[in-house]
Amino acid sequence: MASLRLAVDAMGGDLGLRATLPASLQILQEIPELSISLIGDQGEISAALSAHGGDQSRLHIVHAADVVDMDEKPSHALRHKRESSMGIALQLLKDGQVDAVVSAGNTGALMALGCLLVERLPQVRRPAICALFPAHNGFTLGLDVGANIAASPEELYQFASMGSALYSSMTGQSAPRVGLLNVGEEMIKGTEVVRDAAELIQADAKLNFCGFVEGGDYFSEQVDVIVSDGFAGNVALKACEGTANYIRGELSRFSDQHPVARLIAALFWPLIRKFRREIDPRRYNGAALLGLNGIVIKAHGSSDQSGYYAALHQTVQAVRSDLITNIARQL
Amino acid sequence: MASLRLAVDAMGGDLGLRATLPASLQILQEIPELSISLIGDQGEISAALSAHGGDQSRLHIVHAADVVDMDEKPSHALRHKRESSMGIALQLLKDGQVDAVVSAGNTGALMALGCLLVERLPQVRRPAICALFPAHNGFTLGLDVGANIAASPEELYQFASMGSALYSSMTGQSAPRVGLLNVGEEMIKGTEVVRDAAELIQADAKLNFCGFVEGGDYFSEQVDVIVSDGFAGNVALKACEGTANYIRGELSRFSDQHPVARLIAALFWPLIRKFRREIDPRRYNGAALLGLNGIVIKAHGSSDQSGYYAALHQTVQAVRSDLITNIARQL
Repeated sequence: MASLRLAVDAMGGDLGLRATLPASLQILQEIPELSISLIGDQGEISAALSAHGGDQSRLHIVHAADVVDMDEKPSHALRHKRESSMGIALQLLKDGQVDAVVSAGNTGALMALGCLLVERLPQVRRPAICALFPAHNGFTLGLDVGANIAASPEELYQFASMGSALYSSMTGQSAPRVGLLNVGEEMIKGTEVVRDAAELIQADAKLNFCGFVEGGDYFSEQVDVIVSDGFAGNVALKACEGTANYIRGELSRFSDQHPVARLIAALFWPLIRKFRREIDPRRYNGAALLGLNGIVIKAHGSSDQSGYYAALHQTVQAVRSDLITNIARQL
Repeated sequence: MASLRLAVDAMGGDLGLRATLPASLQILQEIPELSISLIGDQGEISAALSAHGGDQSRLHIVHAADVVDMDEKPSHALRHKRESSMGIALQLLKDGQVDAVVSAGNTGALMALGCLLVERLPQVRRPAICALFPAHNGFTLGLDVGANIAASPEELYQFASMGSALYSSMTGQSAPRVGLLNVGEEMIKGTEVVRDAAELIQADAKLNFCGFVEGGDYFSEQVDVIVSDGFAGNVALKACEGTANYIRGELSRFSDQHPVARLIAALFWPLIRKFRREIDPRRYNGAALLGLNGIVIKAHGSSDQSGYYAALHQTVQAVRSDLITNIARQL
């Protein structure tokens, strides 16, 4: 049985150990070949662990005295936080002691420390953050969703290649359809950067370019990978999450307010819960930092146990599908 | 009783007359002081009208031989389409023969012809398109959602003023909370343009600036007006619509697939339909073109009757609240 080793930044994210610890124990129980290094304050982790039962033999604590704050500038983290839980996790990956890193901490710091410690793949100009969006039969990959406020045509073109490799790696599909985010489907629309990027992507025979797409196409079954700069991609990601949370909230309010709906909700709670879970953005937690020479997955900062568990699951999938080799081959 | 006169671009939009005509008849029935000029092909409109019954005395046909195509370049429309249904509608507004124009046609052409024929308010640098997003207790205004691919700090600042005036006009609220779209709430994040715009908005005592917001905040109850360039705003708008449509679709599939859910759906269809309607993006149809010296409302290109009706309703509200005077005062 092949062993699979993850480093978990135990202190990162809004909930810290309250999310990372139970999620780690949960996934260890399900995957027998998995071992996890929890990086963080030794005393705090030990105390928290003692409250949990079960087999903890594949869980190792690696002490880190420091932590990267959620609002810390990446440049500050670069200079002062290599000994943080995030920094040590990335160093373990660099040293080949783990197969991947998961963190719910500060995204900018994770990207900056990742570039410093894990380094970029030689061909890569700028790494990108890649997120999953649900579609009826599977999912759509969006990148960049936050690493680069702006992107040149050449950088967008590389995002297309990296995203295409990740999608293939996750699904086995050989020629995923790549779309470029724009404000209209007609080729006349959009900025010069976007139009130039379209030409570069179109010209690469390894890529299956399907033209411009719009913000509504993240849920489309007509496209597999959506490429954008990090500003527009981040806005799209947050807008989708915001809409889903709003609708979930309205669904709850609706069933609370109407006596008949409340009766239905009581009688058929498992079905309603299933539907709510299907539209829960946390299920699609776990953004990949693409372009690094190693697998680094960013869990949502507000992840709770179930959100963090989803991110861990995606990380295991990335390791198993040999993501990095596939990206290097595509570039 | 004050009279209220609208010009409707009858030929615009994907469905053309099939949406604009029944929606016009519907709103005329509800608002006795309203009269509508339907601009388009006289023969087609007459033929379509004869299939409808009811009082048509407050509906006037104005013949237009031409129509702006949905994928026509704005520059082409400017040169060749002043005699189109869209162009004639805008000319009627300019001449003071109607109080507002509604069109589901080509947005770029509507903006270009609007600037030419209706003209901008003297102080306005760039007009913007403003859309409504539902929130639990009311709505959020987003602008720009598509008129300007990029925007300078000064232009974003003007969008804040115009959006604030529109929100006040629609709700009576004197100091709506204005947020600036960014990729993070911390002041360190985002582009230089966005950071400079924040300083300008902050410095204006007439504006109630609440700082940076993210894509998820379009549904927040913490902000009333969200300012962005047209690229990011358009992506957000489409992403929200896409998510809502995706969830509506999943809800339908869910109730089709599960026998118990199908039973619930059959028994409680009115309740379910009410919920689906509440999360239907078409309800929030009707984007305002802000910055022109007259009220021009853009209905969604794919509007059906109910979507177009919502846009007409919003137009009536804008006229009644004396929108243009309020914007001029705010700038």
